Amino acid sequence: MPDTPAVHVGPGERQDLQDAVRRAGGEVAALEGADAVVWAGGPRDLPELPGSVRWVQLPSAGIEGWFAAGRLDRERTWTSAVGAYSEAVAEHAVALLLAGVRGLAVSARARTWDAGASAAPQTTLRGATVAIVGAGGIGRAMVPALTALGADVLAVTRRGHDVPGAAETLPAARTHEVWERADHVVLAAPATDETRALVGAEQLAALGPHGWLVNIARGSLVDTGALVDALARGALGGAALDVTDPEPLPDGHPLWSEPRALITPHVANPSQLQSGALAARVEENVRRFAAGEELVGVVDVDAGY
Amino acid sequence: MPDTPAVHVGPGERQDLQDAVRRAGGEVAALEGADAVVWAGGPRDLPELPGSVRWVQLPSAGIEGWFAAGRLDRERTWTSAVGAYSEAVAEHAVALLLAGVRGLAVSARARTWDAGASAAPQTTLRGATVAIVGAGGIGRAMVPALTALGADVLAVTRRGHDVPGAAETLPAARTHEVWERADHVVLAAPATDETRALVGAEQLAALGPHGWLVNIARGSLVDTGALVDALARGALGGAALDVTDPEPLPDGHPLWSEPRALITPHVANPSQLQSGALAARVEENVRRFAAGEELVGVVDVDAGY
Repeated sequence: MPDTPAVHVGPGERQDLQDAVRRAGGEVAALEGADAVVWAGGPRDLPELPGSVRWVQLPSAGIEGWFAAGRLDRERTWTSAVGAYSEAVAEHAVALLLAGVRGLAVSARARTWDAGASAAPQTTLRGATVAIVGAGGIGRAMVPALTALGADVLAVTRRGHDVPGAAETLPAARTHEVWERADHVVLAAPATDETRALVGAEQLAALGPHGWLVNIARGSLVDTGALVDALARGALGGAALDVTDPEPLPDGHPLWSEPRALITPHVANPSQLQSGALAARVEENVRRFAAGEELVGVVDVDAGY
Repeated sequence: MPDTPAVHVGPGERQDLQDAVRRAGGEVAALEGADAVVWAGGPRDLPELPGSVRWVQLPSAGIEGWFAAGRLDRERTWTSAVGAYSEAVAEHAVALLLAGVRGLAVSARARTWDAGASAAPQTTLRGATVAIVGAGGIGRAMVPALTALGADVLAVTRRGHDVPGAAETLPAARTHEVWERADHVVLAAPATDETRALVGAEQLAALGPHGWLVNIARGSLVDTGALVDALARGALGGAALDVTDPEPLPDGHPLWSEPRALITPHVANPSQLQSGALAARVEENVRRFAAGEELVGVVDVDAGY
């Protein structure tokens, strides 16, 4: 590998990504003769690549569109931005959980001092058990903050391999245990047939009147009717949802006026934060490329992911 | 020291504190003949202590009232609950800051999906510099969570001695630097003549349109008029305040209707959380007492604190 790799950045100027290339010791170059390409656009914008290009960095975590367009080849290494945006989503999930347990949604709506004080029951994450159902990249990125806040993390992963920093990790087959064992539950699992309506009346009842449910995964994981009912009865501490079913949540839906609910409109990974996260990934990978190290997020073109 | 100290708990039953004594290996006992007393009441309720009592645990962090009532003596060790409640306040401060940067106050008030999405500008703590002005017990307790969230902490203490985990610590005489250098500022300093109206128009202008101000100290540290003006002009990202000036914040005050403000009614250390924190301190100190170790929060009766 060249010590100072020539990296083409496109489409357009993308000063932030050019800066990231330079911070990593690379040289921003024309496409012709480039060693690598950092591409912030889609598969149809990407020009034909000269043979000199040994590596292409793509901008998104999911790259189904690149496969569908037939733009990935075996002539060079392709990397996706998988995991680059996990920390932004994890931060949002921690923010939602903390806002819930500290009564901030109620306070935010108050227009008088005493109402806020009396209406917002507060608990704490310190000493609490927080379950993360689906502790992949996003769930794992939550663990340092949760443990720093004094919570014990009960992680659930497909196979139950230990999640670093978690007090315990369960396999997905034991997900049913978390509703009794955890004080609060964060949903970070993919939307699959197995996770559809994973959270219904029974699970919410087990979580109980002080428990908060946070969903930053997909709305389909929660039975919305059961949730509305549990909240209205005070049977659940509250629900902080970045994703809903239906989504967008229609005007007049009971969750909009439910004091125990906090809704954010699918903004856990906002576009405002994505460019910074992509620049950080570009810097990391250009540094690795220059040093001849393994890149982060290498696509397996044969496997299709 | 006795291996199984006899500890009197009062006034009343206080099952939570009795449990804490037992978890630490102590025995809950009558006052007569007790080795130690855990007292959850005030100075006037405390009965006369038999000579067998070598140590008294008091329930509050500040103990001016105990000195004023003349109840502290040099016959035995007295411990206050100093620091026991710092973590609860620190958690609230982190919750307020995260809620601010992730736009949760705006979302909490939204009644329609698109309004929440468009009206809540979001930033991130990752890579941000967060100043803690007055990094005493509460400020220090914030550092692990802030660093776990990827922020760099710029601490300010009276003398500038390094705060563990902070990227840099400044002495109080250099407080003026933080408004330019930090992305967000948390006020955790005591209310003194030096900190009165520490934050005015100039400081808010330097913090800028993406900066959040969090106050969990005392309302007097902030010039409320200057804050209202900066928020109305969009010159400040936002303000999350657990304390206000005046306090309580009167009905109809402009901060109640300011979209960039999030007010909690002086609940960073809510009574709901205090019993748990006191029980944890009792458990720790009974364990230390039984082991003959130094206790946490020993009062210097001669010095008066």
